[in-house]
Amino acid sequence: MNDNYDKIILGIDPGTNVMGYGVLGVTRKQPLLITMGVVTLDKMTDHYMRLNRIYSRVQSLVEQYLPDEMAIEAPFFGKNVQAMLKLGRAQGVAIAAALSREVPITEYEPRKIKMAITGNGAASKEQVKTLLIRILNITEQSLLPQLDATDALAAALCHFYESSKPALAKTSGNWKDYILKHPEKIKNK
Amino acid sequence: MNDNYDKIILGIDPGTNVMGYGVLGVTRKQPLLITMGVVTLDKMTDHYMRLNRIYSRVQSLVEQYLPDEMAIEAPFFGKNVQAMLKLGRAQGVAIAAALSREVPITEYEPRKIKMAITGNGAASKEQVKTLLIRILNITEQSLLPQLDATDALAAALCHFYESSKPALAKTSGNWKDYILKHPEKIKNK
Repeated sequence: MNDNYDKIILGIDPGTNVMGYGVLGVTRKQPLLITMGVVTLDKMTDHYMRLNRIYSRVQSLVEQYLPDEMAIEAPFFGKNVQAMLKLGRAQGVAIAAALSREVPITEYEPRKIKMAITGNGAASKEQVKTLLIRILNITEQSLLPQLDATDALAAALCHFYESSKPALAKTSGNWKDYILKHPEKIKNK
Repeated sequence: MNDNYDKIILGIDPGTNVMGYGVLGVTRKQPLLITMGVVTLDKMTDHYMRLNRIYSRVQSLVEQYLPDEMAIEAPFFGKNVQAMLKLGRAQGVAIAAALSREVPITEYEPRKIKMAITGNGAASKEQVKTLLIRILNITEQSLLPQLDATDALAAALCHFYESSKPALAKTSGNWKDYILKHPEKIKNK
């Protein structure tokens, strides 16, 4: 946690061609944009170099912004098995980078993210953008045009809303919560 | 590399319920069994705890045995997209653990592994076991009965054969080789 914020949330949209990220700071229960960006992977022909880049970039984002929590945009369905295997690997290395720094992860399906931000699970990308600008109180210019970056930022904002809800309303697979609820699962050293 | 061996190969069969591993040492161009085992994951209900266990176990195997190279058994096809996404994540965290320790990775499809060991890509599991015992010159008792462990050991042995071949015969996506062949892809710091 940074001294200027009560909480920092890192949002990640891991893909095999582009990885988007967005960092939100929470202060006096208000979410604020800290930064957002994309990591392009499609110029690398080697699959491992792409995975290594996702891994090392997520680790350096964690080191730089010291997020308290990480939110991932994670579709659970896709067109074909090959694409899903590749997507799973990209998600896997991003998850490993957060786990290696003990940052708890929560994942959200795209529909859930749209619902949390716009109130409509089938909202358009444009609608999500409009609301991101309004909610975060930023100019249109300060929102990066790349969809992967806005998707990552939207995941972080969705997590802000979800984690602000009373504990019972949560439905996610948050690891920290799981451990809190099941202390017997933790081996004492 | 361990002082007792010219090369050490770590074989991994990452799955979502069980992860198998096998460690081979190469001395005077002969492969020898160092160890093999399984990491059971199916008692953990939380997906992240499973991924974290794969990640930390692969990292500790790398620290303990100091492998020069890692081979992964990696099917590229599966029944459904959900299963492939989960498998991709399991592969992703295992790959991240090796990448974080700079161990080059090569992956092999099950068919390729069977072919390398038995000469038949459709060989039975029993046939692979029989040949592992013969080639590694071990007793049947010293081969763990768990299929995931023998699959991992078979991946390591397949990599031993593949990496002993002349360079031109290679078809794999080995990262180290890629970098050697494409030095222009490496950014100098």
